[in-house]
Amino acid sequence: MDAVVHLISGIGGEQETAFAIVNNLLDAENADLGELVVVAQSQGIEAVTTGGETEHQVRSLLDAGVSFKACRNTLDTMNLDESDLVDDMDIVPEGAVEVIRLQNEGYAYLRP
Amino acid sequence: MDAVVHLISGIGGEQETAFAIVNNLLDAENADLGELVVVAQSQGIEAVTTGGETEHQVRSLLDAGVSFKACRNTLDTMNLDESDLVDDMDIVPEGAVEVIRLQNEGYAYLRP
Amino acid sequence: MDAVVHLISGIGGEQETAFAIVNNLLDAENADLGELVVVAQSQGIEAVTTGGETEHQVRSLLDAGVSFKACRNTLDTMNLDESDLVDDMDIVPEGAVEVIRLQNEGYAYLRP
Repeated sequence: MDAVVHLISGIGGEQETAFAIVNNLLDAENADLGELVVVAQSQGIEAVTTGGETEHQVRSLLDAGVSFKACRNTLDTMNLDESDLVDDMDIVPEGAVEVIRLQNEGYAYLRP
Repeated sequence: MDAVVHLISGIGGEQETAFAIVNNLLDAENADLGELVVVAQSQGIEAVTTGGETEHQVRSLLDAGVSFKACRNTLDTMNLDESDLVDDMDIVPEGAVEVIRLQNEGYAYLRP
Repeated sequence: MDAVVHLISGIGGEQETAFAIVNNLLDAENADLGELVVVAQSQGIEAVTTGGETEHQVRSLLDAGVSFKACRNTLDTMNLDESDLVDDMDIVPEGAVEVIRLQNEGYAYLRP
């Protein structure tokens, strides 16, 4: 069972919930979980930038094997650059397309 | 790959994000996207009424071939009439049923 | 057609919307709906505690055959006990795992 977490909210509490849930998924025993992907876009992109309050959590989840994919359209709209993001993050042309593509491959969808 | 966008939030920023995402999906090249449906219900219905700040965006997306479906139960609860909505919108008895039906047909789900 | 409603938001209006939608799903005629499951976790857990504003709605939906599943990880994090929840609710180790599992079984996902 694979899952994609849509990190799209600008609400701090919802961003925190997203990271907490991914952490719990990593810790879940006997849950038979496979790939975990976080797609960050829109206001959710702030949570994966360097210097932000959640940078440490992002690094920790990346180290644990979670994939992060950031939306190029969002970067362009917000005048952000790849270098503003935590390292080792994939960039996709449009976050929503990636979320659709993953669901099409059988990933479950979570929107914290 | 088809997708349904659940326009259910009363938060202005989330409504704006919904329209921005649908626009990006329309612009996505090589993404092999098929049908795009926006289901508006609950507080999200405000975003598809005439006279609202987002009326122009709704008309633009309708013109571009996006389907909009508004929830009859929400209209009744909020004492709204079909004539309060932007033209050329379908009405469904219950928005959540439509969202479930579309997922059952293979549509991916996006909740901005 | 089965559906899982993710009760994860701490925003009162979104919790109310969740209950309203489940009620509408119960009332939906000719919709061919099967199982309805509400998974409560994170800030959404408050909506299924006893003494809260929505206790009556939870009891009513349980009586109508809706399944509620509360997240053990959330209870532990918030120092809540099973006895703080409305009776007759299932407890699952991690709400997000349950939501993924249900989608894997074909349940549609709704995030009010």
